Amino acid sequence: MKSRDIYIKNTPLNEALNIWDKALNSLPLFNKTECISPDDALGRVTAKPVFAPRSTPFYNAAAMDGIAVRFRDTIGASEATPLRLTREQFADINTGNALNNSYDAVIMIEDIQRTSEGEAEIIASATPWQHVRTIGEDIVATELILPEGHKIRPIDLGAMLATGITSIEVHCIPSVLVIPTGSDVVQPSAPLEAGNIIEFNSRILAGYLEEWGALSERSEVVPDDPEAIKAALIQGTAQHDLVIINAGASAGAKDFTASVLNEIGTVLVHGVNIKPGKPVILAVVNNTPVIGLPGYPVSAVLTQRLFIKNIIYTALGLTPPKAELTSSTLSRPISSKMGVEDFVRVKLGRVGSNLMATPTGRGAGAVMSLVQADGILTIPAGSEGIGAGEQADIELLRPMDEIDNTLVFIGSHDNILDVLANMLHGLRPLIRLSSSHVGSMGGLMAIRRGEAHIAGTHLIDEASGEYNVPFIKKFLPGVPLKLINLAYREQGLLVPKGNPKNIQGYDDLIRDDIHFINRQRGAGTRILTDLNLKKYKIKGNQINGYDREEYTHMNVASAVAAGSADTGAAIRAAAKALDLDFIPVASERYDLIVPTAHLDDLRVRSLLAAIGRNKQFHSIVQNLGGYNLRDCGKIMYEQS
Amino acid sequence: MKSRDIYIKNTPLNEALNIWDKALNSLPLFNKTECISPDDALGRVTAKPVFAPRSTPFYNAAAMDGIAVRFRDTIGASEATPLRLTREQFADINTGNALNNSYDAVIMIEDIQRTSEGEAEIIASATPWQHVRTIGEDIVATELILPEGHKIRPIDLGAMLATGITSIEVHCIPSVLVIPTGSDVVQPSAPLEAGNIIEFNSRILAGYLEEWGALSERSEVVPDDPEAIKAALIQGTAQHDLVIINAGASAGAKDFTASVLNEIGTVLVHGVNIKPGKPVILAVVNNTPVIGLPGYPVSAVLTQRLFIKNIIYTALGLTPPKAELTSSTLSRPISSKMGVEDFVRVKLGRVGSNLMATPTGRGAGAVMSLVQADGILTIPAGSEGIGAGEQADIELLRPMDEIDNTLVFIGSHDNILDVLANMLHGLRPLIRLSSSHVGSMGGLMAIRRGEAHIAGTHLIDEASGEYNVPFIKKFLPGVPLKLINLAYREQGLLVPKGNPKNIQGYDDLIRDDIHFINRQRGAGTRILTDLNLKKYKIKGNQINGYDREEYTHMNVASAVAAGSADTGAAIRAAAKALDLDFIPVASERYDLIVPTAHLDDLRVRSLLAAIGRNKQFHSIVQNLGGYNLRDCGKIMYEQS
Repeated sequence: MKSRDIYIKNTPLNEALNIWDKALNSLPLFNKTECISPDDALGRVTAKPVFAPRSTPFYNAAAMDGIAVRFRDTIGASEATPLRLTREQFADINTGNALNNSYDAVIMIEDIQRTSEGEAEIIASATPWQHVRTIGEDIVATELILPEGHKIRPIDLGAMLATGITSIEVHCIPSVLVIPTGSDVVQPSAPLEAGNIIEFNSRILAGYLEEWGALSERSEVVPDDPEAIKAALIQGTAQHDLVIINAGASAGAKDFTASVLNEIGTVLVHGVNIKPGKPVILAVVNNTPVIGLPGYPVSAVLTQRLFIKNIIYTALGLTPPKAELTSSTLSRPISSKMGVEDFVRVKLGRVGSNLMATPTGRGAGAVMSLVQADGILTIPAGSEGIGAGEQADIELLRPMDEIDNTLVFIGSHDNILDVLANMLHGLRPLIRLSSSHVGSMGGLMAIRRGEAHIAGTHLIDEASGEYNVPFIKKFLPGVPLKLINLAYREQGLLVPKGNPKNIQGYDDLIRDDIHFINRQRGAGTRILTDLNLKKYKIKGNQINGYDREEYTHMNVASAVAAGSADTGAAIRAAAKALDLDFIPVASERYDLIVPTAHLDDLRVRSLLAAIGRNKQFHSIVQNLGGYNLRDCGKIMYEQS
Repeated sequence: MKSRDIYIKNTPLNEALNIWDKALNSLPLFNKTECISPDDALGRVTAKPVFAPRSTPFYNAAAMDGIAVRFRDTIGASEATPLRLTREQFADINTGNALNNSYDAVIMIEDIQRTSEGEAEIIASATPWQHVRTIGEDIVATELILPEGHKIRPIDLGAMLATGITSIEVHCIPSVLVIPTGSDVVQPSAPLEAGNIIEFNSRILAGYLEEWGALSERSEVVPDDPEAIKAALIQGTAQHDLVIINAGASAGAKDFTASVLNEIGTVLVHGVNIKPGKPVILAVVNNTPVIGLPGYPVSAVLTQRLFIKNIIYTALGLTPPKAELTSSTLSRPISSKMGVEDFVRVKLGRVGSNLMATPTGRGAGAVMSLVQADGILTIPAGSEGIGAGEQADIELLRPMDEIDNTLVFIGSHDNILDVLANMLHGLRPLIRLSSSHVGSMGGLMAIRRGEAHIAGTHLIDEASGEYNVPFIKKFLPGVPLKLINLAYREQGLLVPKGNPKNIQGYDDLIRDDIHFINRQRGAGTRILTDLNLKKYKIKGNQINGYDREEYTHMNVASAVAAGSADTGAAIRAAAKALDLDFIPVASERYDLIVPTAHLDDLRVRSLLAAIGRNKQFHSIVQNLGGYNLRDCGKIMYEQS
């Protein structure tokens, strides 16, 4: 357990970046150039200015189809006094042909009358060198074609090839090796057993390296064995410009990366005051930079961005692109530990005139949180967080265009939302649906704060038994809106296939051998559960797992399918998706709240068009199981 | 000469695009999909939504290094009453390890005291499933991972591989064949003779196709022979999704493309009301779109953008990107023929608060005009042009950032400018020098109109013999500025090596056997020439070629080197560059005019820093020949 003693420091990010830059400055990485043919040069960056060795055109060339003439022979020609040139006074010529030395002008074919004797009649005199591209007209030999540090575009290839350039000096493309480590790490195609970690990090990391312009290579997975790691690093640093090792950067029993790096090279930094990504290691081995990235995918991606992206651009001879920042209003407070630089993944949505940012609020292990993120919010080390309603700069992960075209749905989760996201794309390829599942009450609050275009809700009022309307009257008074039905759906208790513990209803939840899994407070399903428990006079503390909360029907279903819970409340579609048995409890109404202000928004109109009288939509939804679409698209309530 | 009769229509651009879109809609090009492994999917576009076949994590996994426990065993632990867990009550566990079924929580290593007997002492009770990533916490099986029409990013690879996706359906990458034609067309490496056209168009066109995402292939050059062209087109359309043939689209003696296409397929459009690019041909052969592009590189590039770019994006399953437009002030009027859609290449420069657009004003054969262009201005068919000072939308060819970092130099040409462009890059990689050579007077006028940061001028006043200052007082009265010397330089007459026609000075210019080449009106060199001619009592009409004007020293040198002129006036550096003999006429002062308003501009400061006391700069300039830098950087005159 020796390696458990590794001490991870908390170096401030800026200091770590400075140490890293300074150490790398002197390494060969940034000074490698090569000479290549223009044919291979697209996208490469010039390391030297490029001058024209030859003029273009390199001969006097006809700029038009027509005849080559001596301008002196044409003097006096006019419409009134046409002039006939004899066969000896002109030559047929096509665009690009060389002018014979005796000629000094071209007359366009359109301006020539031919006579039967092969003579040419002209009705205007030519000026010297008219319609001739003279030598060097485009580029004169010795002229600067491309300055140093220029990224070569297709048109630049033309200028180089036209002037006879056969070789140019460009910056080398940095070659980067990504070494995945871990004895439990297996390839995606391998048979799986519990505890296996699927080797996808290296693919993500290599993908970003390629996007930034590097040449990336992935090695075999190296087991958690100091000798194997050492051998891989020694070989990698000998053959590549940069090595990325993932993971083993932490201080666990099997985290050997730091100690091996210390042995064979210099560890510059181990531990930075960032979250996620704290245990990152910056080192130099063999004159080659080596970075040890943390194991969680989100941590690995973010630390690679922080410490590697600029290096790749600099090595390529390019100025690293500035982060695209946008100012956004925070929809809820984010707290942050003093002394830690926090990188928070956020979703963005333009609702009305506000660009709202909402943290995705999931752990560094959640790949999907980064798939869905629109941007990253940095909370500086000196800050304790940002309050709701405050402005913050967000670094964009998607083009602003795409965010502006995003329909923001917040509220209760339903499996139909995935169907809608796809339908919408089919109808309007530019419009994207972003849905955040925060429960029905969360949806109402989002509408109240102006954070969503549409909220999904299925809240039953205990007193009246009425759905949604009483809650709207209470929490959204005075907000002009329409309440539009999406579907009726079956709620119930999910149990494993065959119902091995013979659960029949709520009464069974208090059994000692039953572990329940609940939904979060504010979810319509939670309210329904609590209402039913009240009816059966059951208290929450009588139920094992009443306090264990999940945010979606599918997560409840997943827990039951996995056996970490025996039952939980969810909709029938969730049971059907994961092949569970379903004990029906209620049929409930799931509606969409759409503020009148957004009804004319193209994004909202497109979604409403997708659900209304669309055969394909209805048949896909019926297949999900447990839905009734008799009122789908119908206005259930209006408020003005 | 049969093919000379081909009739090229003047179809309006929008109509041509509509015909093209409609004809292509039904072709297989847009509906080709394939199934590939996620490992090959970076940058590809989903043709179907992607759902998770498996949950991730697929087992309950420790989220921390520590020990796995049963939460019930930990109840009651606190700082005041630490609890000892026996070896049977816990298991060591590392992040990512699977929780044995009997455990339901993880306690972090930091919160554990070990005793010698291998027991673990804890000071807080665990909550159920704390520090456990439960099954499906990240992604639940059946969840939508990527919608249809999504361009796959590195992080998406992770989400797919994590959930066990082994194959996804994506849009095929369109395969495009570029066929260069022309019997005079030779490869860049071939030995050249006058009349040869260097085959670089296909490289430029293929380069843009690659940038847009297509797979491009270039064929051998096909000679101007209808049978050879026919064979190439039949084979090309059988093997590719799209075929581009360049050129032969026009109506010259050797332009067979249209007639061949008519024979083997359907010509949809031949001739569009655009300039450049009028003779473009749109056709379908073998269910495959074929476009015949005009031969001039600028025409070929612009028509390819107009008719092919969107097709590539659509075939890839992407929405074509919107053109990035910027509003700009025109620095000079542009006239346009009614009925023709004009595409004008412009340079852009942000001077003060104005973004100024200046047409590059060169022919469709000039590759360099497109290399240097920052944007394209479209003048609609219904317009006769745009006046100076009017606003116009420009489609950007460079990122706005790059344009904002461009130092705009307008004025007299000097070979030192190329040196400066590179020096500047070395000092400040982001700053780019854009220089337009319009002569000294043009430079003064550009300063007056607020179009340039710096003007270069070498205007001698006839009366006083003084340089630049009298002109500034006359044309820029009241403009606060500094006049800063760049160099003294030798002006003279350029003659071929050995001076075969024995030219000794201005007197020789009136000889019958001498062809002169002049500079444009307003150029300092032209003014010097006219002054000298006056001194020698020579009139312009006594000189052959007095009316033939070039815009730069190098173009004059080029004409003399090529033999299309016997002599011309230019600086010694131009003679030296092209190995000509030089008859000195005068030493003149070349100064920079810098308005005080721009003196603090980082771009201007960087340029001034590059010329001041910079040894490398001085030695490079001395090598150009004919320069004296004794006053370089010195303020010669100030006006406030």
